Amino acid sequence: MKKYVIGVDLGGTNTVFGVVDKEGNIVADASIKTQKYSTAEDFVKAGVECLKPLIERVGGIDTIQGIGIGAPNGNYYNGTIEFAPNLIWGHDGIVPLAKMFSEGLGGIGVKLTNDANAAAMGEMAYGVAQGMKNFIVITLGTGVGSGIVINGQLVYGCDGFAGELGHVVMVPGEEGRTCGCGRRGCLEAYCSATGMVRTAREMLQNSDEKSLLRDKPADQLEALDINIAANKGDRLALEVYERTGKMLGEACSNFTAFSSPEAYIFFGGVCHAGELIMKPIRESYDKNVMNIFKGKAKFLISGLMDKNAAVLGASALGWEV
Amino acid sequence: MKKYVIGVDLGGTNTVFGVVDKEGNIVADASIKTQKYSTAEDFVKAGVECLKPLIERVGGIDTIQGIGIGAPNGNYYNGTIEFAPNLIWGHDGIVPLAKMFSEGLGGIGVKLTNDANAAAMGEMAYGVAQGMKNFIVITLGTGVGSGIVINGQLVYGCDGFAGELGHVVMVPGEEGRTCGCGRRGCLEAYCSATGMVRTAREMLQNSDEKSLLRDKPADQLEALDINIAANKGDRLALEVYERTGKMLGEACSNFTAFSSPEAYIFFGGVCHAGELIMKPIRESYDKNVMNIFKGKAKFLISGLMDKNAAVLGASALGWEV
Repeated sequence: MKKYVIGVDLGGTNTVFGVVDKEGNIVADASIKTQKYSTAEDFVKAGVECLKPLIERVGGIDTIQGIGIGAPNGNYYNGTIEFAPNLIWGHDGIVPLAKMFSEGLGGIGVKLTNDANAAAMGEMAYGVAQGMKNFIVITLGTGVGSGIVINGQLVYGCDGFAGELGHVVMVPGEEGRTCGCGRRGCLEAYCSATGMVRTAREMLQNSDEKSLLRDKPADQLEALDINIAANKGDRLALEVYERTGKMLGEACSNFTAFSSPEAYIFFGGVCHAGELIMKPIRESYDKNVMNIFKGKAKFLISGLMDKNAAVLGASALGWEV
Repeated sequence: MKKYVIGVDLGGTNTVFGVVDKEGNIVADASIKTQKYSTAEDFVKAGVECLKPLIERVGGIDTIQGIGIGAPNGNYYNGTIEFAPNLIWGHDGIVPLAKMFSEGLGGIGVKLTNDANAAAMGEMAYGVAQGMKNFIVITLGTGVGSGIVINGQLVYGCDGFAGELGHVVMVPGEEGRTCGCGRRGCLEAYCSATGMVRTAREMLQNSDEKSLLRDKPADQLEALDINIAANKGDRLALEVYERTGKMLGEACSNFTAFSSPEAYIFFGGVCHAGELIMKPIRESYDKNVMNIFKGKAKFLISGLMDKNAAVLGASALGWEV
């Protein structure tokens, strides 16, 4: 009877709902604007109204095993979103989102985790990590997130917040870049899309080298501009990828000393650059990792970036209910 | 019938064998000199001869559930010691030690892991980590080792070598100290007993400050001298503990971003300094860890340092057989 789960990808702009079958096909989906609502109550009400016709289409609520939600600052243990800086209805408190959706849909089981963990579950269930027991997903987007799998299980830690690898300090001390987390020198401040733009701006300012990136005012520069310029062979833009990959490789060599994963799986906008970013990551990793680990870890790009990976990943959580 | 396990603590100097009951009491023990033998075969033969009377004393081999060995560079998956730099019969190859002991004792099951993982198992079974599902043991001795427990399980990674936190790079680039692993800037190069001595020597060389540590030639300085001087209030010796603790606190704040453990448990000679080392660790951690993690992790000293923790820890592995 229970043939489907629902995956919810709660993003800063859109929240996508998908009904997913056991083979990982999204058989029905719809979305709402995340920030159109000023309170969590209104957001959940709209979400429930959006979901009801989808559920009816596959035969009603009795066919649904459970709901999985991937959300920024999501806490798996508590089913809450906690102090999510980019959500107008969630930035200054704790929202019991899993409970609220469950109540809105007649008591159905709802599990919630953060977006990077959902991506890791998606890779394990339907992507390039099928069959792997130890791997790390690193999301390179506006921020740097991570989902860590050890012994076949997501790592949540004692409080539900483990896997914040974007906030490992790579440049200690005062010379480290300020980070959105309030500290300095975090991986995210250098290797997110935003961090890459900061790198490009610094390089433009510190040299007179010709570059396509000078065609735009520095404060309007976006990660996409760097990608376009690099693909045209622009030296400075290529150097941004080199530096970004170098630091990511160094970071991964430290992560390997922790959990020695079988693979690192990269996910998110920055990965569309393909070998431009992956080659310097691999080279830096090989140079920096301890001898006993050399040649062991694979470096992969997500197989789910063109599908709705976040919905699929979150939906995998629905089977746990 | 199976009422005992055997724990083996294979150290650079002594190898201690203990027969352990279900309550964690060592009911019989004995030891041999690890390096008296030039081949692994001779070492195992001597070990088996040493064990036989212990086993007889508790009622013969049928009362033994299994054997657990904690050894440097031990690989849990393969039961091997691999390229252990400090063992004359094990430094340039792979020794199938678990298999060799098993064959020497009529086919009994033998499991092997590295010494820091054995310490973590000991803490979980009999020490301060009883009941914890997520914690990290950091051993501060000649080197810096670690045993990581996540979701109640030791972390071995894809190859059996996970948990090398002594070789996370803390000082990137050329200014990092050389490390025994052949790289630069590792935590171990600063925060092991040996690393602390290097810190003291650097400080003595770079200042004219009076210090009890100047009573000895710098090349004869040992970690114990630093401890004695610090306990007498020697400013320079106290500063060595401050700097060591500061870096350990920074390292732990990064480890928390990985696995958010409930506790860090410190083990080994350096910990005999008590608050001299623990206070700067806690202060540095509180200063450096991400806001969402503040105030959560405990910082503990092993409860097993005076007992034979390594034997107890290794023996816990014997119950897995």
